[in-house]
Amino acid sequence: MTQAAVRAHTNIALIKYWGKRDEALFLPTNSSLSLTLEKLYTDTLVRFDDSLSQDHFILNGQPQAEKETQKISRFLDRFRKEAGITTFAHVESINHVPTAAGLASSASAFAALAGAANIASGLNLDLKTLSTYARQGSGSATRSIYGGFVEWNKGTSSDDSCAIPVDDADWDIGMLVVAVNRSEKKISSRVGMKQTIETSPYYPSWVETAETDIQAIKEAIKERNFERMGEIAEHSAMKMHASMLAAQPPIIYFEPASMKAIQIAHQLRDQGIPCYVTMDAGPNVKVLCRLSQAEQIKNAFKEHFSEEQLMITGPGQGIRQLTNEEYRANNWSLN
Amino acid sequence: MTQAAVRAHTNIALIKYWGKRDEALFLPTNSSLSLTLEKLYTDTLVRFDDSLSQDHFILNGQPQAEKETQKISRFLDRFRKEAGITTFAHVESINHVPTAAGLASSASAFAALAGAANIASGLNLDLKTLSTYARQGSGSATRSIYGGFVEWNKGTSSDDSCAIPVDDADWDIGMLVVAVNRSEKKISSRVGMKQTIETSPYYPSWVETAETDIQAIKEAIKERNFERMGEIAEHSAMKMHASMLAAQPPIIYFEPASMKAIQIAHQLRDQGIPCYVTMDAGPNVKVLCRLSQAEQIKNAFKEHFSEEQLMITGPGQGIRQLTNEEYRANNWSLN
Repeated sequence: MTQAAVRAHTNIALIKYWGKRDEALFLPTNSSLSLTLEKLYTDTLVRFDDSLSQDHFILNGQPQAEKETQKISRFLDRFRKEAGITTFAHVESINHVPTAAGLASSASAFAALAGAANIASGLNLDLKTLSTYARQGSGSATRSIYGGFVEWNKGTSSDDSCAIPVDDADWDIGMLVVAVNRSEKKISSRVGMKQTIETSPYYPSWVETAETDIQAIKEAIKERNFERMGEIAEHSAMKMHASMLAAQPPIIYFEPASMKAIQIAHQLRDQGIPCYVTMDAGPNVKVLCRLSQAEQIKNAFKEHFSEEQLMITGPGQGIRQLTNEEYRANNWSLN
Repeated sequence: MTQAAVRAHTNIALIKYWGKRDEALFLPTNSSLSLTLEKLYTDTLVRFDDSLSQDHFILNGQPQAEKETQKISRFLDRFRKEAGITTFAHVESINHVPTAAGLASSASAFAALAGAANIASGLNLDLKTLSTYARQGSGSATRSIYGGFVEWNKGTSSDDSCAIPVDDADWDIGMLVVAVNRSEKKISSRVGMKQTIETSPYYPSWVETAETDIQAIKEAIKERNFERMGEIAEHSAMKMHASMLAAQPPIIYFEPASMKAIQIAHQLRDQGIPCYVTMDAGPNVKVLCRLSQAEQIKNAFKEHFSEEQLMITGPGQGIRQLTNEEYRANNWSLN
């Protein structure tokens, strides 16, 4: 088989990944833990094709320029090398992410690409090994190989810095995504991480406490203690942003509307509705909540945010091949 | 002399004071450094009066209830004890702080009270010793005894945890106060400090780096290196708020409008206008700038803030007795 199409969902880290100990290999300074999300995903088709004289990459129907295609080529080279493939590839990708959500994610992108390349190349790596491949496209892609709650163990080397499924999250877990701003990040995660490591006096403590947080949140998940899990998750997000705030100059991803969203979530919590805030290297706010209470929470946000800025999602699954119907829905030919 | 009236100006810490090592004595965990401000001050009159059967405290023309008066009484007891005075006191105080600024400050209040009690009691302590008395009313009052840039050395005991004048700040130093919110603080400084010390993993690093910051900013002031001074000040403020953000639960004084103010200041800096942000345990933002550029900076803020939310001030002086004219302006009798 030389063609495969795979769907991967994006994920939101509850224990954050912030900082690399090895930039080339995407080895993180600390382990992280995430929730894979149902409503945000990427479909990617990979076909190794003798007739091609170079790699092609089409994203959302648009042929991509050399720079974007090169990153894909380098990523595929690892698969080609292992599988002994010498042909070029046709790669087609569709981000099923509501544009307003401003959450086009490299996590789902590289997990889907890894999944499709794995089958199309005939390598058929197991998922754990595959996650180490995904990692080398984008750190957070490591975790999108699996569904539900997923740990990315920092490991000891490139071979064992991989994803581990923790729990399917099938116990009334939801997330409200509050899209604050769709514009490009002012500071990329890569640059932000580096600047934090180099200039923030709080970074060593971030690394140290992240390991404790991982153990604590896994315990809370095991006990299905939603409140405890949420508290640990919010604490991790705040610590990550605090480590950046203490960088020199400060790195601030909070926008006025981010603060407003945090205030609303905290007010709801004061009213007895368990919901917890998390934020990545951007202004969007994600609210971890009971899926059964997500509509009620969304309504509270509607006073300050528009319908299209608010999206509810439940837990997503791990990577899987597309059905024939999904192929057709993407306007992709089955061969 | 049994009556005296003294004016004290409030101050804004550039190296922040955050946390007590001894709550009863107001001994701080770290030294701090501030700028005394011209436009924000408190006038306080103290008269020890045989005819009184209890202490009286009138604030802005309003007789105060027992709770407020008790704090004043306890503060005066130290002076009474040292001076061998057994009579009660009449205390009258006027906060000359634009209400919109939302900056009614215990710093100027207790510095003025200490200054007036010092003269009215006939104790006539030197200013350094007087600052240790002011400290026991409110930590930040320690620094308001002097004008310009003032260090509050954390000291080794109650006797030497005192203010030290550093520089008169007479080299084109100004501050734009952006009043975000006039409402009561949700979390008092006292409670916020305690919660940070007890639950924030970043607090030890805050304490450690504060001492380095003090030395660095004193060096920058000595060299009149405005940019360096501003960078250190902003870094200190961000580190203080970062230490709170990492507390459990997080302590967040940033409001949406605070973030907007920070963004405006950073944009101005990107345009080449040196200005630096500082914030205390509340949502108001203070912008350290060249006094000669303060109007220009204020104009940039006017796009998002009203005239009455914006106040420019230069450096203020230390405590001093009121002139006869100022007595009259406050409607106070000279005896």
